[in-house]
Amino acid sequence: MSEFQNIGLVGRTESESAVISLKRLMVFLEREGFAVVLEEDTANTVQSHGASVSSRDKLGELCDLVIVVGGDGSLLAAARALAKFSVPLLGINRGRLGFLTDITPDEIEKKVGEVLAGKYMAESRFLLDMSVTRRGNPIGKGAALNDVVIHPGEFIRMIEFDLYIDGQFVYTQRSDGLIVSTPTGSTAYALSGGGPIMHPKLDAIVLVPLNPHTLSSRPIVVEGSSELKIIVGEHNIAKPYVTCDGHDQVITEPGDIVRIHKKPHRLTLIHPIDHNFYETCRSKLGWLN
Amino acid sequence: MSEFQNIGLVGRTESESAVISLKRLMVFLEREGFAVVLEEDTANTVQSHGASVSSRDKLGELCDLVIVVGGDGSLLAAARALAKFSVPLLGINRGRLGFLTDITPDEIEKKVGEVLAGKYMAESRFLLDMSVTRRGNPIGKGAALNDVVIHPGEFIRMIEFDLYIDGQFVYTQRSDGLIVSTPTGSTAYALSGGGPIMHPKLDAIVLVPLNPHTLSSRPIVVEGSSELKIIVGEHNIAKPYVTCDGHDQVITEPGDIVRIHKKPHRLTLIHPIDHNFYETCRSKLGWLN
Amino acid sequence: MSEFQNIGLVGRTESESAVISLKRLMVFLEREGFAVVLEEDTANTVQSHGASVSSRDKLGELCDLVIVVGGDGSLLAAARALAKFSVPLLGINRGRLGFLTDITPDEIEKKVGEVLAGKYMAESRFLLDMSVTRRGNPIGKGAALNDVVIHPGEFIRMIEFDLYIDGQFVYTQRSDGLIVSTPTGSTAYALSGGGPIMHPKLDAIVLVPLNPHTLSSRPIVVEGSSELKIIVGEHNIAKPYVTCDGHDQVITEPGDIVRIHKKPHRLTLIHPIDHNFYETCRSKLGWLN
Amino acid sequence: MSEFQNIGLVGRTESESAVISLKRLMVFLEREGFAVVLEEDTANTVQSHGASVSSRDKLGELCDLVIVVGGDGSLLAAARALAKFSVPLLGINRGRLGFLTDITPDEIEKKVGEVLAGKYMAESRFLLDMSVTRRGNPIGKGAALNDVVIHPGEFIRMIEFDLYIDGQFVYTQRSDGLIVSTPTGSTAYALSGGGPIMHPKLDAIVLVPLNPHTLSSRPIVVEGSSELKIIVGEHNIAKPYVTCDGHDQVITEPGDIVRIHKKPHRLTLIHPIDHNFYETCRSKLGWLN
Repeated sequence: MSEFQNIGLVGRTESESAVISLKRLMVFLEREGFAVVLEEDTANTVQSHGASVSSRDKLGELCDLVIVVGGDGSLLAAARALAKFSVPLLGINRGRLGFLTDITPDEIEKKVGEVLAGKYMAESRFLLDMSVTRRGNPIGKGAALNDVVIHPGEFIRMIEFDLYIDGQFVYTQRSDGLIVSTPTGSTAYALSGGGPIMHPKLDAIVLVPLNPHTLSSRPIVVEGSSELKIIVGEHNIAKPYVTCDGHDQVITEPGDIVRIHKKPHRLTLIHPIDHNFYETCRSKLGWLN
Repeated sequence: MSEFQNIGLVGRTESESAVISLKRLMVFLEREGFAVVLEEDTANTVQSHGASVSSRDKLGELCDLVIVVGGDGSLLAAARALAKFSVPLLGINRGRLGFLTDITPDEIEKKVGEVLAGKYMAESRFLLDMSVTRRGNPIGKGAALNDVVIHPGEFIRMIEFDLYIDGQFVYTQRSDGLIVSTPTGSTAYALSGGGPIMHPKLDAIVLVPLNPHTLSSRPIVVEGSSELKIIVGEHNIAKPYVTCDGHDQVITEPGDIVRIHKKPHRLTLIHPIDHNFYETCRSKLGWLN
Repeated sequence: MSEFQNIGLVGRTESESAVISLKRLMVFLEREGFAVVLEEDTANTVQSHGASVSSRDKLGELCDLVIVVGGDGSLLAAARALAKFSVPLLGINRGRLGFLTDITPDEIEKKVGEVLAGKYMAESRFLLDMSVTRRGNPIGKGAALNDVVIHPGEFIRMIEFDLYIDGQFVYTQRSDGLIVSTPTGSTAYALSGGGPIMHPKLDAIVLVPLNPHTLSSRPIVVEGSSELKIIVGEHNIAKPYVTCDGHDQVITEPGDIVRIHKKPHRLTLIHPIDHNFYETCRSKLGWLN
Repeated sequence: MSEFQNIGLVGRTESESAVISLKRLMVFLEREGFAVVLEEDTANTVQSHGASVSSRDKLGELCDLVIVVGGDGSLLAAARALAKFSVPLLGINRGRLGFLTDITPDEIEKKVGEVLAGKYMAESRFLLDMSVTRRGNPIGKGAALNDVVIHPGEFIRMIEFDLYIDGQFVYTQRSDGLIVSTPTGSTAYALSGGGPIMHPKLDAIVLVPLNPHTLSSRPIVVEGSSELKIIVGEHNIAKPYVTCDGHDQVITEPGDIVRIHKKPHRLTLIHPIDHNFYETCRSKLGWLN
């Protein structure tokens, strides 16, 4: 019998094609005798009668596995909500890129079937916790599987801040911002910004400056256990924003302190047994030739 | 007798140090018998009695030379306003970087004196004209000495657009935006974005993609006479903005057409006789060692 | 009647597939009534009886058009040999990349036929002249359609040199070398080295430092008419080499002077009528998605 | 009493200034009652009578601490020779850059005195082991504290090879070579090649492609425990070389296998108590402004 009995389903509901794949997946799961729990918003879109429905947060308690149908963005959102539980995630790709969602829609039955039969690869990924304090008081926080980005909110407004790593002053940076990325995020925005690719198993964080004023600024890779502190500069015209995976933004003021470190809970990501990180790189980044 | 008799003055009025230099410059010019015309806002700040005052636009008609006291930003603003006249500009540096304003405050009398005595280098710089049309109707325009930037307005919102050069389709780009820069702007924002340095005399435009999704995207340098056309994509979540030298922004909608080409009028920039572009690079970009 | 009557043929003789295409091309040209002149080495490989044979240099005098069958390297070699004549070149691609040789082997009759019938695009490309002097005496020279590279000969041996442009000192560079590239070469080695793409019509030269010690070093684009001077440093462990299009190397000593400037003669490159530089970029550089 | 009693000394003997610092250091150490052991070559240069002399290899057995006077290159060489012992190294800077040798010559007595008195920071750095096999037989090997580089020996000769990490195929690369760097080497050649800065404590290896043909190639950071395998391609014109810290090169042939992994023994590097990695970066890389 499968170790996974109760299967949560989350879909990118604004996408018609995701809904089609969701329904196909439900048919398959029910035929095979699994208990399906639909996330609320997903249930509304799929209009499924009879299936159990739960809030996103509750999925983490009720399910042995959560399957996300959508793009990497859908999986990022689910990961942030479910990170505090130990439920693993599996992704079916209905978006453009798919570093996280690596099952294609036409192989749902085959690949999901194999996973449920115990033929899979489990990977542990860490998230980042971000918090902002103003004169010692918390004013905002967030979590990120990909990246925390500090940026000027509006464009064409350079920001200035001081960076400390493990209590040591690194530099005062004037730039369009800073991407603080996990290995998971290193193939997303951080890569466009000029950062290195980091293998998912690496316990490290990369800091990628965005269009820095100082031409000798380079991406810096530090240990995953590092404590990062960013002090918002006094001379910013724009109010710097802090964003987690492109969401949950906090607007800062001069002197505010942004702290970033690894989240204690880790996410378990499930891949088909033949998953290979470098093959995904070759395919997604055009290394094939 | 100097070829320059009527000297216009424009200052970065929010800067105390610029005001000090302005006053020192006025004393010098009046003692030497030159007619000084103050730009309106500058006049208010300097509180000079007796000096002629004029709107920024009129300076171009009244003066033989306009001296800007401030940073490169102040000179950019003056250049955009005065580009339609033939009056040359001279910059005294009171800002941070100074690729355009290359006289330091402590050598005002010496260097400005030399320029007025005919010992100077005149450089011709071109500007870019930008216009946006919606279903054939003009909805906005601007001019830039440094760069025209198309960007998502808000940060962390990738934009998508089609680029055409001289009628030929180049690519559909998905990125944080595109910097279209003159040689003058190539040492400013375009350089932070990864573009090459272009010598000021070069008749060329560089296009620098900002954090492009496609990793093989590179800066492209085209002839100064090129006609650029950007068609705003249909699938943008954010409404792309178009900004000239960081000002005068136009907000676009899907299908809008942004056209950029060289302005017919050129700007004459005056430098001290010993000016050397590469020396400025060495000093400003830290090539000295 | 075609403006091209006498057609020179040059092939990449070490490639079997090039020989096949050459023979197919000869059959086509003779059937259509053109006079074919084979370059010596090519003639030996093709073992053609009856066809006229000529040295590579003579081809420039005898022919109205020279067709090169091979890779960009074959065309570069032909261009360097024939640059002093006015004979135009057409390339049939039998190598890997093909920015210069843009007819594919399976469309030889169609595309070459169209060109011979007057349906073509002629492009003028400039070459670089390189010369080295030691204590005032010439010790070596060369020509390049793509690039002149100064490098340490052996790897892992940084070199040091002073760069002057139009008589102005630019910097002392310590690096793996310097690529001095034409627009034609900007999509070849210079691009791998981090240089910008330059449109073929641009009258400009780009200088791309190879793995420079100073992190703020950037590619510099200057006017095509610029005079470049490189003075080999005193402290080099390795003896820097100067290479033209990867050939014709000159080995330098401390104090040697390398001079590079545009060659007076230009090359005429023939393309099929539907040739489009940006389409080649999209295809060769993987911009298609 | 100091934990360090027997102090080995190694100098960059071709440098006069290093010899001066060596003598000053010997005077200081003997005055303070430490036993000094000179490395053979160093002893010949310093012409010290009476001091013990030993081969470089023996220093590791005889000494509690080895002090290197020279540049980072001198320390790299000492590290490779002494890595199999547990003796820690301390560096006094007499070269140009100094990420490893961080005591300046004018503070020898103060800083070395503090270290000997127990006021120091010890850092553990790992080295890389490299070996080459041909048809199963070993043909060469080496160790590197900074980097292993595979490159074409001669310049302007692209090489081709297949890269595997932990048994997984990564890509076939065509480039000027590949830098495989430790965190220690990440601020050396790998940084010039476009790699990220890695904090010295990070347990990771970075792979930096040199001028890769495929524009989407990026530096890849993998776990320190990774097993790297490079298979030399069949189509190389040049015979690829493998170099450790710029020395000990092995010349390969098609089909040869280069294996790289972390060395079991680690090096202990001693710093003054106030050492700060980021301060070194700011100073050496010009981040100060």
